[in-house]
Amino acid sequence: MAKQTSVPASITSADVARLAGVSRATVSFVLNDTPGHRVSETTRVRVRDAARQLGYVPHAAARSLRAGRSNLVLMPASISAIGRLVSDWVDDLHSELDRHGYTAVLHAGRFADPLDAARAWAEMRPAAVVAMDGDRFGGRAAELLRRAGVRGLLAFAAQPVEGVHTVGFDHARIGATAAGHLIGRGRSRIGVVMPLERGLGTLAEPRLAGAESVAARHMATVTPLELAYSRESATALARRWRSLGLDAVFAYNDEYGALLLHALRAEGVSVPDEVAMVGCDDLVLSALQQPALTTVRLDLPSAARIADTVHELIETGTAPEVAPVEAVLVHRETS
Amino acid sequence: MAKQTSVPASITSADVARLAGVSRATVSFVLNDTPGHRVSETTRVRVRDAARQLGYVPHAAARSLRAGRSNLVLMPASISAIGRLVSDWVDDLHSELDRHGYTAVLHAGRFADPLDAARAWAEMRPAAVVAMDGDRFGGRAAELLRRAGVRGLLAFAAQPVEGVHTVGFDHARIGATAAGHLIGRGRSRIGVVMPLERGLGTLAEPRLAGAESVAARHMATVTPLELAYSRESATALARRWRSLGLDAVFAYNDEYGALLLHALRAEGVSVPDEVAMVGCDDLVLSALQQPALTTVRLDLPSAARIADTVHELIETGTAPEVAPVEAVLVHRETS
Repeated sequence: MAKQTSVPASITSADVARLAGVSRATVSFVLNDTPGHRVSETTRVRVRDAARQLGYVPHAAARSLRAGRSNLVLMPASISAIGRLVSDWVDDLHSELDRHGYTAVLHAGRFADPLDAARAWAEMRPAAVVAMDGDRFGGRAAELLRRAGVRGLLAFAAQPVEGVHTVGFDHARIGATAAGHLIGRGRSRIGVVMPLERGLGTLAEPRLAGAESVAARHMATVTPLELAYSRESATALARRWRSLGLDAVFAYNDEYGALLLHALRAEGVSVPDEVAMVGCDDLVLSALQQPALTTVRLDLPSAARIADTVHELIETGTAPEVAPVEAVLVHRETS
Repeated sequence: MAKQTSVPASITSADVARLAGVSRATVSFVLNDTPGHRVSETTRVRVRDAARQLGYVPHAAARSLRAGRSNLVLMPASISAIGRLVSDWVDDLHSELDRHGYTAVLHAGRFADPLDAARAWAEMRPAAVVAMDGDRFGGRAAELLRRAGVRGLLAFAAQPVEGVHTVGFDHARIGATAAGHLIGRGRSRIGVVMPLERGLGTLAEPRLAGAESVAARHMATVTPLELAYSRESATALARRWRSLGLDAVFAYNDEYGALLLHALRAEGVSVPDEVAMVGCDDLVLSALQQPALTTVRLDLPSAARIADTVHELIETGTAPEVAPVEAVLVHRETS
């Protein structure tokens, strides 16, 4: 609609200095609260008034360069890979970090190489990096970030990462919990949904491996089933369902579970009689499915706890352990 | 799990300068590609080798301060308010911006005052700000950002915003499209779901107003219905449904629609016989509901088109108009 109008001239600290009748350095000392510089209260008021009058906003990066620290907390994550469960939690975490005076941003870049990812994050010189998908986050990436001055490194990961405050989040246990339940319900030929959507592969692989490890101990079989989050893909899978010879399915999560449940019903495949199903995340919609979807509930640590931990890591370099994410089976009607 | 190990010393450009046998300024010229400085190719190679050997990553903010421009594109948005429809689109946009050499980040801060929001964004000195929810984004906020040197300002909004490249996205038209369809199907007492979840109010209000404006022209009534995204809230609404005297409902979007559809069915309220329903977003799950959910499909411009526009705005200060978001009714079984 509207074209852009002509660009107004940028206001710089030089303009503020001129109006306040002080040096540019003094403007910087006052607006960036640089420690170790004595500036009288009268001058401070004059500088702040001039800045307000001109609409001048100090540059966070300049302030962080001078202060030697940034208040940026970077969360690397693809937005679409963040399910509804985690998206509310991430919003809470951003609020809690804000309460501590940090600016939290989500960085959605996708990198094949974890070191390339770490380099891109390091360029932004955040105070902390919080990685939800920390299993790709090795010791070398952590060292690169530390050397760039990133003080808070926190990752959710199955295994402790050298130099990173790790919160246990073992996706293999989710798959194992689902498969163990299905085997306990008398099933032995388990399909495991592998979402084709980008960003989910690194979470789906360990869930599959967890199901396989339990199945191997119980003479059960596990068959990976590729599924895109589309009606066409779910219908195609439902149509060839009976040829697969499966009596159970772990659907990756509740969203893929609800999709597959609808598609199986449309093809006349009976759940749970012909196939038992388990989802994950205990979303609101899972209990409302017909039949109600059995699921794995993930008990995440509170966002406030993680924000406190990140703050302690930035301030002191260390923080108490955070209890790992628990995977709890919620038994409903599909199994 | 793992406590943090001892912090390795940060590597600075001084370390690189020492190893390469050049001045710190030369390191900065080479690694930040500062224009207007002649440095021999031999020296450039030596500096880059030293940086690589030490694992030194240049500081994006320092580079942007020296170059006078940043490559950051900021998208202010709450993650949980970004529905599934828009989250895939935002991921695509981040990829497309990356292709142009920008780093896109999502900033989830919530601000009561749009000027406070603009100030927080301005502090990060982004090259561009892309606002999905641009209706709160007034001319004063735009001017503050321009004066902080933000060159690309693009917002999705119902009305053109002074100084901002506006892409038409009129939520009132979504409500009007839904209500117009329901009235055309012979309904006259329309409930409109108002989600209680944070961040959705600014989108829900204009949808309600759009429904009201159409209803007023057709002797129909509109009743706002508060609904939280929880089973309890939906069940409570379904239980008092018959006392409301409504024969139709616009459910805000497909997620709230599916939730309410389940709750109404559980309480024995028949859809569409007793109440006709329309959702929004045309999510995969809407077509799979039983009965299949009538919805409003939103045709967003391609992420590539928006990324190109942002790039042009940053480079030249102007760009061609982008066609507005269209709202198209998709008629299924609930109406």
